[in-house]
Amino acid sequence: MSRRFSWERRIEFRDTDAAGIAHFSTFFTMMEQAEHAWLRELGYSVLWKQADNTLSWPRVAAECSFESPLWFEEIVQLEGQITKLGRSSVTYRFRFRCGERRVAVGSITTVCCHVAHGEPPESVEIPAKIRSKLSEYVDTEQATT
Amino acid sequence: MSRRFSWERRIEFRDTDAAGIAHFSTFFTMMEQAEHAWLRELGYSVLWKQADNTLSWPRVAAECSFESPLWFEEIVQLEGQITKLGRSSVTYRFRFRCGERRVAVGSITTVCCHVAHGEPPESVEIPAKIRSKLSEYVDTEQATT
Amino acid sequence: MSRRFSWERRIEFRDTDAAGIAHFSTFFTMMEQAEHAWLRELGYSVLWKQADNTLSWPRVAAECSFESPLWFEEIVQLEGQITKLGRSSVTYRFRFRCGERRVAVGSITTVCCHVAHGEPPESVEIPAKIRSKLSEYVDTEQATT
Amino acid sequence: MSRRFSWERRIEFRDTDAAGIAHFSTFFTMMEQAEHAWLRELGYSVLWKQADNTLSWPRVAAECSFESPLWFEEIVQLEGQITKLGRSSVTYRFRFRCGERRVAVGSITTVCCHVAHGEPPESVEIPAKIRSKLSEYVDTEQATT
Repeated sequence: MSRRFSWERRIEFRDTDAAGIAHFSTFFTMMEQAEHAWLRELGYSVLWKQADNTLSWPRVAAECSFESPLWFEEIVQLEGQITKLGRSSVTYRFRFRCGERRVAVGSITTVCCHVAHGEPPESVEIPAKIRSKLSEYVDTEQATT
Repeated sequence: MSRRFSWERRIEFRDTDAAGIAHFSTFFTMMEQAEHAWLRELGYSVLWKQADNTLSWPRVAAECSFESPLWFEEIVQLEGQITKLGRSSVTYRFRFRCGERRVAVGSITTVCCHVAHGEPPESVEIPAKIRSKLSEYVDTEQATT
Repeated sequence: MSRRFSWERRIEFRDTDAAGIAHFSTFFTMMEQAEHAWLRELGYSVLWKQADNTLSWPRVAAECSFESPLWFEEIVQLEGQITKLGRSSVTYRFRFRCGERRVAVGSITTVCCHVAHGEPPESVEIPAKIRSKLSEYVDTEQATT
Repeated sequence: MSRRFSWERRIEFRDTDAAGIAHFSTFFTMMEQAEHAWLRELGYSVLWKQADNTLSWPRVAAECSFESPLWFEEIVQLEGQITKLGRSSVTYRFRFRCGERRVAVGSITTVCCHVAHGEPPESVEIPAKIRSKLSEYVDTEQATT
């Protein structure tokens, strides 16, 4: 039985568009905000500066299916699990809800990279300590590990 | 042999993030901008007001795979085709390039809806005139029509 | 001695730009978010639907002076006061701080309007109940009432 | 008689909000886009990399007054002049129009800085070549030089 990460956020006016609802691109930003809050809860940052190098997690893929809209000032809940924990990549899946209403399901896939100023990111193995913490959130029913 | 829709845009400073590159959420906004330009080129708008009703195209799904970053002031080209033209839905696929560099591939799926103020959108059959124009862009090698 | 409204928020990755800091346009969005939270704390919404009409507060002016940057994941505090409470308009001033560091000072001026779908907003006198609550926040040293 | 810089842009769907019009924060982004296009027209970039250093133009102040709204797919014209050309700072003023309709007037003040990775920007005198080109746009009736 795996753990789930929960995070919530109010829909702000800038999130909305002329259709009166949260713009579809904001769902991707919300998934990223939740991912960053998740890493902070585990004691890290998406930009993790260590003595000798900096780790970051560029995204290589993202997707979302939209089931119902979100309106200004509503509170949306994101519930996250990990559906794939690879050697260097992580796929996070988020279910969006507003109270009892199903809103959306999306995922983002990130790759653990060593980053240095002026050089392209280089993928590295996820450090054991981080992997151990992330593995608690793997959805054992659906995940490919 | 199907037609392709081409559109390009400069990466603006607000598109970038602290990683120095266009934020991944902007790829979804760019696909939407290209879709809207495409509909304008066909003589329509994504918000098409007729005598008795208004048609719009809410999105039900979106996805993108990222291959290389986009930097400030670069010009990105989007080349669009339709990979699925359903009774009421359209799936647009966009290939992002920057000169010879492959940047990303993404898609958005929209549904033709009748919209009225204060009521939920109601999906309707794509009007024959619009369908006829869209059908020229169907990727006959990959599409499911 | 007037009251002050306090609100804080974490700098999210989408707030940043290629200079590595929160984009200057996000300061305006943050002021608006703080204003909306302020109205909620007073028991209202910036879109206040009553039986017979809807009140809203379109902005007519905004300005900001930037003193120091905000970085990803920093917590910024906004402290709000009202510097002008007119018949139908309100000017909110916000001081931005990050811990002891002065970050920015800005203001937005909004006008109380009756709004109806498809018609231009019409300015109206601020309802007495709302005015009474707002008046507690007027900066009596600097304000023009 | 000074020159004016002209630039135009379509209002995109992501620019709009639930009030159905371009969000007020987008006026600041549009001024910045126009400023960057202006510098490109003069042969520079807002991030100008030379052999030994990089010049950039962080903003220290911005303001805007809003006269009428902008709607989805409208074309807005920005007409720019310089109202203050200091030793290291430039204040750009932009008048926004949509056809004959006056939309807004705003300004941004930027400071010419030497920037190096990991160090705070350091203000420097505007290089003579750039100053010469900018000076053609100074509004001689209103400017303080």
